Amino acid sequence: MLEELKQQVCQANLDLVAEGLVTLTWGNVSGLSDDRELMVIKPSGVPYNGMSPAQMVVVSIETGAIVEGAWKPSSDTVTHRLLYQKFSGVGGITHTHSPKATAFAQAQREIPCFGTTHADHFYGTVPVTRLLTAAEIQEAYELNTGRVIVERFAELDPLAMPAVLVASHAPFAWGKDAADSVHNAVALESVAAMAIDTLALAPQTGPVDQFLLDKHYLRKHGKDAYYGQR
Amino acid sequence: MLEELKQQVCQANLDLVAEGLVTLTWGNVSGLSDDRELMVIKPSGVPYNGMSPAQMVVVSIETGAIVEGAWKPSSDTVTHRLLYQKFSGVGGITHTHSPKATAFAQAQREIPCFGTTHADHFYGTVPVTRLLTAAEIQEAYELNTGRVIVERFAELDPLAMPAVLVASHAPFAWGKDAADSVHNAVALESVAAMAIDTLALAPQTGPVDQFLLDKHYLRKHGKDAYYGQR
Amino acid sequence: MLEELKQQVCQANLDLVAEGLVTLTWGNVSGLSDDRELMVIKPSGVPYNGMSPAQMVVVSIETGAIVEGAWKPSSDTVTHRLLYQKFSGVGGITHTHSPKATAFAQAQREIPCFGTTHADHFYGTVPVTRLLTAAEIQEAYELNTGRVIVERFAELDPLAMPAVLVASHAPFAWGKDAADSVHNAVALESVAAMAIDTLALAPQTGPVDQFLLDKHYLRKHGKDAYYGQR
Amino acid sequence: MLEELKQQVCQANLDLVAEGLVTLTWGNVSGLSDDRELMVIKPSGVPYNGMSPAQMVVVSIETGAIVEGAWKPSSDTVTHRLLYQKFSGVGGITHTHSPKATAFAQAQREIPCFGTTHADHFYGTVPVTRLLTAAEIQEAYELNTGRVIVERFAELDPLAMPAVLVASHAPFAWGKDAADSVHNAVALESVAAMAIDTLALAPQTGPVDQFLLDKHYLRKHGKDAYYGQR
Repeated sequence: MLEELKQQVCQANLDLVAEGLVTLTWGNVSGLSDDRELMVIKPSGVPYNGMSPAQMVVVSIETGAIVEGAWKPSSDTVTHRLLYQKFSGVGGITHTHSPKATAFAQAQREIPCFGTTHADHFYGTVPVTRLLTAAEIQEAYELNTGRVIVERFAELDPLAMPAVLVASHAPFAWGKDAADSVHNAVALESVAAMAIDTLALAPQTGPVDQFLLDKHYLRKHGKDAYYGQR
Repeated sequence: MLEELKQQVCQANLDLVAEGLVTLTWGNVSGLSDDRELMVIKPSGVPYNGMSPAQMVVVSIETGAIVEGAWKPSSDTVTHRLLYQKFSGVGGITHTHSPKATAFAQAQREIPCFGTTHADHFYGTVPVTRLLTAAEIQEAYELNTGRVIVERFAELDPLAMPAVLVASHAPFAWGKDAADSVHNAVALESVAAMAIDTLALAPQTGPVDQFLLDKHYLRKHGKDAYYGQR
Repeated sequence: MLEELKQQVCQANLDLVAEGLVTLTWGNVSGLSDDRELMVIKPSGVPYNGMSPAQMVVVSIETGAIVEGAWKPSSDTVTHRLLYQKFSGVGGITHTHSPKATAFAQAQREIPCFGTTHADHFYGTVPVTRLLTAAEIQEAYELNTGRVIVERFAELDPLAMPAVLVASHAPFAWGKDAADSVHNAVALESVAAMAIDTLALAPQTGPVDQFLLDKHYLRKHGKDAYYGQR
Repeated sequence: MLEELKQQVCQANLDLVAEGLVTLTWGNVSGLSDDRELMVIKPSGVPYNGMSPAQMVVVSIETGAIVEGAWKPSSDTVTHRLLYQKFSGVGGITHTHSPKATAFAQAQREIPCFGTTHADHFYGTVPVTRLLTAAEIQEAYELNTGRVIVERFAELDPLAMPAVLVASHAPFAWGKDAADSVHNAVALESVAAMAIDTLALAPQTGPVDQFLLDKHYLRKHGKDAYYGQR
C-alpha cells in the first residue's frame, strides 16, 4: 500500500543525507497520505546506505498502530503523528540534528530573521519550545515533545513558520509533503549557520524590517507569489 | 539565438554549484551579449540538476521583455538588467546567498581589505548598500535593489570593485563575462570567510596599507599586469 | 589468524576516513579478539589509500609483542593496549585528531551535555585528563597517556562514557567493537562542533537536566532500550 | 629534462587541490633538483583541471632564468627561489591561501603550539613575518617577500619549523621535497583551524610544555624517531 508515498519518503530520507544534514543515522523524514489517515516513516536506527521504499513503515494517524512494515518505525514517530494531527496542511515532516540549527536549540535561542534568506522560507523568528518537565520526559516523552511544539505554535501558523527548535534537543521542519519538509530543513540549517556568523560580526543585529519580511515571504508564498515557475 | 552565450551562462550557473556556493536553488548567473542589447539568465526556481542551455531565458536590456525562452527568468532579472545598463564594461553578473558573504550583508558590515587574497580581486573595502525603504520594497523591489547598488557605486568603479553586499540580503558579484562573475563570487565568499576568522582572532584588525593593495590589485588587473599568462 | 577481525579493523579505519575525521594519517582504530588476548591495529604512518586487512598488525595484550604482521603497529598501540586491559567490555578503540574535539582537548575544557545529541551517546560530561608530567612524557609516554585516561575514569564507567579528551592532545573513543568505537568518535566530533557553536551563542549554557540525560541515554543504552531495531 | 621532478611537482600541485587547500588557482608547489641548481614550479594562473607535468616550468636557481617550459612560471617564483638559496635542506615549497592559516596571517598573530597535532609537525610557534615597507612592495615585491621570510628565520631552523605566515598575506610551507611541503601545508591549515577554535573556547590558552613539544616533535623527526615505518 501507499507505494508512491513510500518511494517519496525513502527518497526524501536519502536527499537529507545528500544535503549533508545527517550524521550517523540521526534524522528521519515522514510523509502523510492524501486522506491524512496514514503516515509513512523511516524505520528506526537503520543505515541510509541501501535504504529502500520497502523498508518504510506505515503507521495509522488515529491509533498509532503499525499498519504495514517489517521494521520498527523511527522512535520519533509519536512526535510526527501528533504534528500531523494538530497541523492541518502539513503533509511531510523532517527531524534532524543538523549542527547549526541544533546549536541554537541547545543555546535555547530563537533565530530572528536577519535577512532575506530567512524571509524567503520562515515568516518571522524561528521559535524555540520550552523545556520539558521531568514528568513530561519520564512518561510519554516523544508525545510530550510533540505537545510542546504544538503549545509553542498556539499563536503561530505552522504553514508560515515551517520549523521549530526543541529546547536542548534539535529542529523539526515540515512542509506540504516529505520533499518540501526536507527543503525547509535545509533552509533552516543554512539560515542558522548564517545567523551564527552574523551574530559574531554584529552581536546587536536585530530582525529585518517587517516590510522586507513581508515582501520576501509573500513573493514566494503569498497569494500573488511570482517566484519560480507557476 | 545567442546559443554560445546560453551555453556559457548555463555552464556558469553549474560552476556556481560545483564551487559550493549554492544552497537549494539560491543563486543565478547572467551574461550579456556583445552588443549589450540582450542578457541571458537562468530561469527562476529551476533545479540545477539537468539544467541545459535551452532553458536559459533571453531578455531585452532596453525593454525587459522576454525575447526567447519557455521559462520565467530569475526573479532577480530586473536587478541584473539595471546593473548592465549602469555599469559599462560589466558583461556577467552572479547573485548568490553564499553563507559567509551573506553574514556580512546581514550584519551590515563592509569587508575591509585584510590581506592579499582580498587585494587580488577587490580594490578596497567591499561595500554594503543602504537598507531599502518600505516604499522601495513594496513597489518595484527588484529594480530598487539595483538602484541602491548603483547609488552605492556613485564614487566607486564597478570594474575595480566587482562585488557588493546588499544590506539584510546577500551579495552580487560581476565581471567581464558570466564566468568571470562566478570567479569573483567565489573569491568574495573566500575573502568573507577569512575576514570572519581574522576578526575573531584580532577584532581591531585594520585594512592593509594602500601600497600593498595597489601592488596586488595592479599586478593582476593594472595596465602592467604580470600575473597569469598574457 | 584473526582474519575476520583484521577485516573489521581495516574497514573501521577506512570508515574513519570516509567520515571525514582523518587528516593526513592522523588516526587509528583497533579491535580486540573475543578472548581479549589479542588486539588488531592499524600499522603506523601508513597511507589509508590502498590499506588492506593483511597490513593490520596483531599484538598480544599481555606482553605487547607483535604476534603477526610485517609492519610496525601504530605508535599509540601501547595506549590502546592499556585501555583494553583496564576497561572490561571495551572491544574497539579509535584515536583521532578530529578538529573540534581536539580544540576542546587543547583548551582543556570538558564538554558538558548541552543536548540530546550528546545524551544519546555520552552519559554526562565528556572528561579531560590531567596534563602529563615531564617525567611521564619523557619515559613511557604512550603508556602514561593510557594511565592518565584510566586515572580520569576512576569514578567513571567507560561503557557509559565511551570517550575522553587527553589534555593538549586529542580524543580517544571506544565501544564494544572497532565499528562502534568509530561510531562514538563520529558522535564526539559532532557533539564538540555543536558545543563550540552553542557556547558562542550562549556562553553561560549549562548542562541539560539529569532527567533528560537519563531519558536519552537510557532509551538507547539502558536495559529497557527501545531505540533502533532489537 | 627533470621529467621525474616535473611529475612529482605536478602531482603535488594536484594533491594540494585534493586536500581542499586551493580556491580558484590560489596556490603553487615547487620542487628542487637534487643538485639544487634547478627548480620546477607550476605555471602562473593555469587551471588545475587538466594540468600535466609538461606544463611545469624549469627555472635556474642561480640566475632565475626559465630553462625550460612554454608557460610563465608562478608569480611567486622569485620567492621560492630565494628560499631554496637560503634554506639548505629544503627541497620543496608550497604556497597557499588556505583560509584558516591565512586568517592568522591577516590577523598578524603567530600560532602557538596548543597541542600534539602542532608539535608533530612544527617545533614551536609558527612565526609571522614583519610587514613589508612601501619601498619593499613597490620594487622587487616577490623577492622582498622571500627576504622577510629569511629575516624572520634568522634564529629559527627552517627544517624544524617548515612554515611561515607572511603578514597580511598567507602561508608558505616547505619540506624535503614537493610532496613533503604539501604535507606540511595541510598540517598547518589543520593546526590553524584547531587553534582558532581553541582560542574561542579558552582565549588565554598558552603553549604546551616544552617537554611535550620535544617529545612529539622528536619522536617523529629526531634522530631516534620511532613514528612511522623506518
